Amino acid sequence: MKTIRVTVWNEYRHEKTNPQVAEIYPEGIHRAIAGYLSAEGPFEVGTATLDEPEHGLTDEVLGATDVLIWWGHMAHGEVQDEIADKVRDRVLQGMGLIVLHSGHGSKVFELLLGTRTGALKWRDDGEKERIWVIEHGHPIADGLGEYIDIPKEEMYGERFEIPAPDELVFISWFEGGEVFRSGCCYRRGKGKLFYFRPGHETFPVYHHPQVMQVIKNAVRWAAPVQGAAVSYGRVAPIEPIAGR
Amino acid sequence: MKTIRVTVWNEYRHEKTNPQVAEIYPEGIHRAIAGYLSAEGPFEVGTATLDEPEHGLTDEVLGATDVLIWWGHMAHGEVQDEIADKVRDRVLQGMGLIVLHSGHGSKVFELLLGTRTGALKWRDDGEKERIWVIEHGHPIADGLGEYIDIPKEEMYGERFEIPAPDELVFISWFEGGEVFRSGCCYRRGKGKLFYFRPGHETFPVYHHPQVMQVIKNAVRWAAPVQGAAVSYGRVAPIEPIAGR
Amino acid sequence: MKTIRVTVWNEYRHEKTNPQVAEIYPEGIHRAIAGYLSAEGPFEVGTATLDEPEHGLTDEVLGATDVLIWWGHMAHGEVQDEIADKVRDRVLQGMGLIVLHSGHGSKVFELLLGTRTGALKWRDDGEKERIWVIEHGHPIADGLGEYIDIPKEEMYGERFEIPAPDELVFISWFEGGEVFRSGCCYRRGKGKLFYFRPGHETFPVYHHPQVMQVIKNAVRWAAPVQGAAVSYGRVAPIEPIAGR
Amino acid sequence: MKTIRVTVWNEYRHEKTNPQVAEIYPEGIHRAIAGYLSAEGPFEVGTATLDEPEHGLTDEVLGATDVLIWWGHMAHGEVQDEIADKVRDRVLQGMGLIVLHSGHGSKVFELLLGTRTGALKWRDDGEKERIWVIEHGHPIADGLGEYIDIPKEEMYGERFEIPAPDELVFISWFEGGEVFRSGCCYRRGKGKLFYFRPGHETFPVYHHPQVMQVIKNAVRWAAPVQGAAVSYGRVAPIEPIAGR
Repeated sequence: MKTIRVTVWNEYRHEKTNPQVAEIYPEGIHRAIAGYLSAEGPFEVGTATLDEPEHGLTDEVLGATDVLIWWGHMAHGEVQDEIADKVRDRVLQGMGLIVLHSGHGSKVFELLLGTRTGALKWRDDGEKERIWVIEHGHPIADGLGEYIDIPKEEMYGERFEIPAPDELVFISWFEGGEVFRSGCCYRRGKGKLFYFRPGHETFPVYHHPQVMQVIKNAVRWAAPVQGAAVSYGRVAPIEPIAGR
Repeated sequence: MKTIRVTVWNEYRHEKTNPQVAEIYPEGIHRAIAGYLSAEGPFEVGTATLDEPEHGLTDEVLGATDVLIWWGHMAHGEVQDEIADKVRDRVLQGMGLIVLHSGHGSKVFELLLGTRTGALKWRDDGEKERIWVIEHGHPIADGLGEYIDIPKEEMYGERFEIPAPDELVFISWFEGGEVFRSGCCYRRGKGKLFYFRPGHETFPVYHHPQVMQVIKNAVRWAAPVQGAAVSYGRVAPIEPIAGR
Repeated sequence: MKTIRVTVWNEYRHEKTNPQVAEIYPEGIHRAIAGYLSAEGPFEVGTATLDEPEHGLTDEVLGATDVLIWWGHMAHGEVQDEIADKVRDRVLQGMGLIVLHSGHGSKVFELLLGTRTGALKWRDDGEKERIWVIEHGHPIADGLGEYIDIPKEEMYGERFEIPAPDELVFISWFEGGEVFRSGCCYRRGKGKLFYFRPGHETFPVYHHPQVMQVIKNAVRWAAPVQGAAVSYGRVAPIEPIAGR
Repeated sequence: MKTIRVTVWNEYRHEKTNPQVAEIYPEGIHRAIAGYLSAEGPFEVGTATLDEPEHGLTDEVLGATDVLIWWGHMAHGEVQDEIADKVRDRVLQGMGLIVLHSGHGSKVFELLLGTRTGALKWRDDGEKERIWVIEHGHPIADGLGEYIDIPKEEMYGERFEIPAPDELVFISWFEGGEVFRSGCCYRRGKGKLFYFRPGHETFPVYHHPQVMQVIKNAVRWAAPVQGAAVSYGRVAPIEPIAGR
């Protein structure tokens, strides 16, 4: 199997300012996820963060990324439009994109989906989430059981303003009474997107083995395929046109 | 049946500079379409054009529009971002949007779909187009036969960079050898979008009775529905949360 | 608005053998639903039941039905294959079909969807169900709020073996910890299908105003449209074929 | 990469009665396809035909098949219902199914899709078909260019009575003026289906390298995935139910 080059992007702010978050992710959410991915193959994993030059997403980095993982929350507005546009273009050209949790409100996700993806219900009371498998034959569900239980999580509830997913793999049940489409696949241009809901920064969600199983599965699913060579623009007719 | 308030928006440039276009549409494409719609009910039809203040799409006009029809081509870049954003927001809040022909490259369409909707193959050799009905039970196909023949049209060919339509109603066959997804339905937010391919300015396409039949059908289909009252943001739990 | 001719079909067995059910629906589930529909227009409502000749679904009845509502449970196997086939054919030709609750296991539903639609999780402990609106711009959600609460219901849980719905309007949350795709739209042939989950016979679910609101909305949504006239079979070429 | 066990099923009648077909496929369509697949890995390929006992599809064969390829035409009615049901069940449990050309009218395809999949337009005048790539990022389009040209083929034209495909990969253009959805992906139960249009028996279509490229790609795409372990039936509540 071909090596998949993964870049884990993280806003990396909560970890520096909130001791509770720093304790869970001493080196940041990006390093935690990157560590789990590196432990298994065939992934070649790098990281990038908001406060690096060009947010760590230079043309060189993006050009050498097969799948980009995105976590952001408090500083969506600080992501430069130019960089968000570049990420969008790379996805349309074939790069996979996995948007995690509060990344739903990111410029990148909203640009690619077209709706106000920040619009949903939420509550950070630390309640139980149960993520049900809806499409058990989907590769992103590989190796799971009926559901994933997360003891304490932030709640996201419907109505979530997204286009209907091309494939809906997971639906979440919340202790407080809500539901959420928590595993959503999209094809956009030549690229594939997966939105995966769990991952509030104050709970150790990315240390949960099944959550990481899903992210690993999603990386494999979102990796670019060769596909067909197509072109755009003015073309000559293939067949004769009458009266020409 | 409730009156549907329609605004037909047109770039309105070709008609002023190209005598061939002016002959076909002496008062502009917008007035031609508006005229045909007004002749049948229950439509209340207005028009708006690029060179009016705010492109004719003031808050008042947008607020009183149930379905917006959009034709643009050579001046997509002159549409102000602020107005394009307003149109997008109105669609997400429930306004219907019908994008015609070269409107595929407009800011409004690209913003709502997220892909580079300008990317497709084209050729303006004036060839035969045959628009086949794919979903004959769809209201947008009401009153049609097997297909619509247009004797001379600009060709658009696949690959067309759009998200897979929620419903694909028409596929075009072109004399020169290409095919195209020419009737595409989308739901975005609370609104409905319909892309309809035909309508090159140098051919009398919007005088074709079946083309206008489709546009009338699409207006009825895209009209807002009451729907359910939903809200977004922080919410209290409905059910008790353990340990709170 | 044109009158919609509705036939409410019910197995009508539980009501005759279970006093608890008989108390809730003294004249049967079919008459209860028919009564609520008749109270509002523009519906012309009839009923049909399993133990009538041809299950009450003669060619005459089916031919004069725009939308068929289906409730069955304990006697799916007693529905004659020939009648189930006729219902399927009528749907493919344009009749709307609304399948309620345990009707998910009916021959009619399985024939039209192709999967083992009887396969799901269930529990009849009488627990709370909360049906969340997912697509608030959908006509089937007209007039609703955020969700519908049903105090006591049978639980259906995922994985539910259905093809991914063309439109997913509702998702249910259950007190016991499960979720379910409870409002599913499909287009099949020229007809439209809607599956709506609630309605266990031992609880007064079809006396719930919002449940009946959904059923009324669904009848309007599923009503046949004129559509386009298409044909099948051997055809002559429209364009000349080289070498012929 | 894991070996994929493929069974190529063929009605195998035309080859025995029509010398023109026998010349193109001396050992039958099944052996031709099997031969091309075997030449590349990692496929383990067997064949089965209508006139073998149980049509060659014993429990043992089906149980050891990851992907089944199906070609049938003149004798759809001779396939035993029991065998068709078994094939359907295996697909729902995860086996991939690739239905070729006139296989659209088979019991197996109709059972899994629910519509009258035999309904389409056709003409066997030996005209040009051009199969356009619509989703160039799809693995089934791997290694292709813009389109596949087939010099002489039977025509199939829309309206084709199928449920809207979950993914539409190819659309065909025909010399005689028609279009057709010729590469259609479906998920049903735990299995994946791909319908691929070309392959009339009197033309050497399965000797066309790009047609075989698509079939190879489709075999890889349709191969079963591990997925998640789910169950059906009565379950105990996971969370406490009030009043129990």
